[in-house]
Amino acid sequence: MPYIKIDVTREGVTREQKQKLIAGVTDLITEVLDKDPKLTHVVIQEIELDDWGYAGEQVSVLREKGITAKKQ
Amino acid sequence: MPYIKIDVTREGVTREQKQKLIAGVTDLITEVLDKDPKLTHVVIQEIELDDWGYAGEQVSVLREKGITAKKQ
Amino acid sequence: MPYIKIDVTREGVTREQKQKLIAGVTDLITEVLDKDPKLTHVVIQEIELDDWGYAGEQVSVLREKGITAKKQ
Amino acid sequence: MPYIKIDVTREGVTREQKQKLIAGVTDLITEVLDKDPKLTHVVIQEIELDDWGYAGEQVSVLREKGITAKKQ
Amino acid sequence: MPYIKIDVTREGVTREQKQKLIAGVTDLITEVLDKDPKLTHVVIQEIELDDWGYAGEQVSVLREKGITAKKQ
Amino acid sequence: MPYIKIDVTREGVTREQKQKLIAGVTDLITEVLDKDPKLTHVVIQEIELDDWGYAGEQVSVLREKGITAKKQ
Repeated sequence: MPYIKIDVTREGVTREQKQKLIAGVTDLITEVLDKDPKLTHVVIQEIELDDWGYAGEQVSVLREKGITAKKQ
Repeated sequence: MPYIKIDVTREGVTREQKQKLIAGVTDLITEVLDKDPKLTHVVIQEIELDDWGYAGEQVSVLREKGITAKKQ
Repeated sequence: MPYIKIDVTREGVTREQKQKLIAGVTDLITEVLDKDPKLTHVVIQEIELDDWGYAGEQVSVLREKGITAKKQ
Repeated sequence: MPYIKIDVTREGVTREQKQKLIAGVTDLITEVLDKDPKLTHVVIQEIELDDWGYAGEQVSVLREKGITAKKQ
Repeated sequence: MPYIKIDVTREGVTREQKQKLIAGVTDLITEVLDKDPKLTHVVIQEIELDDWGYAGEQVSVLREKGITAKKQ
Repeated sequence: MPYIKIDVTREGVTREQKQKLIAGVTDLITEVLDKDPKLTHVVIQEIELDDWGYAGEQVSVLREKGITAKKQ
């Protein structure tokens, strides 16, 4: 009985990316924990950039300064 | 001091249904746990169908295939 | 596809009370939203009294002062 | 590694208020727990008034009756 | 800025399985969303079997009846 | 109607620190949003070090390597 919640900033996540996240997390849970996928729910929640704070600053402000969350 | 969070897919839940959920959950908590309703908060969050995954698939895809969550 | 999370202070909730909460919430969701119970998950989380704050005070402190959450 | 989630009713919270909440919570965590702010994330989620229930009633209904959440 | 929460029943999940879940989810997020792993936090929460309800019944009761969540 | 959830690694947070977090967050909410403290609930959840992942690694492993979350 797993339930997985993914909170992520709303920055153009596509429907296809969401499907990959859902399929990928479900496969991982099935593989590592041997759980029936029909008991696994995954919920993605996109958070507005004004509503996510990192290191005390709104992500919208960080993005205006050119600071991204991209892998380097 | 109870706090209840209801995550549900966004599929036309009406204001009246939400009121029934809020009243029903609060009554249940009051009855079973003897809690003051003024200390009980209930939050409903509707999730877009692209954002909820079940058995590795987006619910939007399941609905396109005619698979519903209705009681049978 | 509903998922319900109940946060409640850890104050001697019995197994039977938990069962009543789980059955009651699931019945309510089934009745109000016409959802298949096999798609409904309910999770109860008991929170230590030192870890729940109300009106700026730990519930453990409120209880020491004789303030309860009981229905009046 | 702290993660803080603030659920609040959607009643005109401004961008500036959100920034104050994010900065204030992060400062508090840094001061009380001595945590690196770069490991502290704060997420604000505004909840529609129809979706928040208090004492068994929708907040939208309470507001229509003139009942507010303001400090008295 | 992703934060992922995994709720799962407490049924002997090992430290190694947890590490696989954490590494796997972080890799998936990095690959699909191109996010810096240093901005990705994953939290696993194990839920007691009395505290998780499925289809209106406690999982502890389901397990006593021989009903598992294993992949079939 | 605010509800604040603080997830933090379990690393010796004292009762006094918890009280400071609860009082501080409640004061902040009252000051910034003008909310009645009697409608503000704060919940602290301590997470075991094996259960929190950062950058793909368990915090317990990071701590064994001498990597802390302390402010620098």
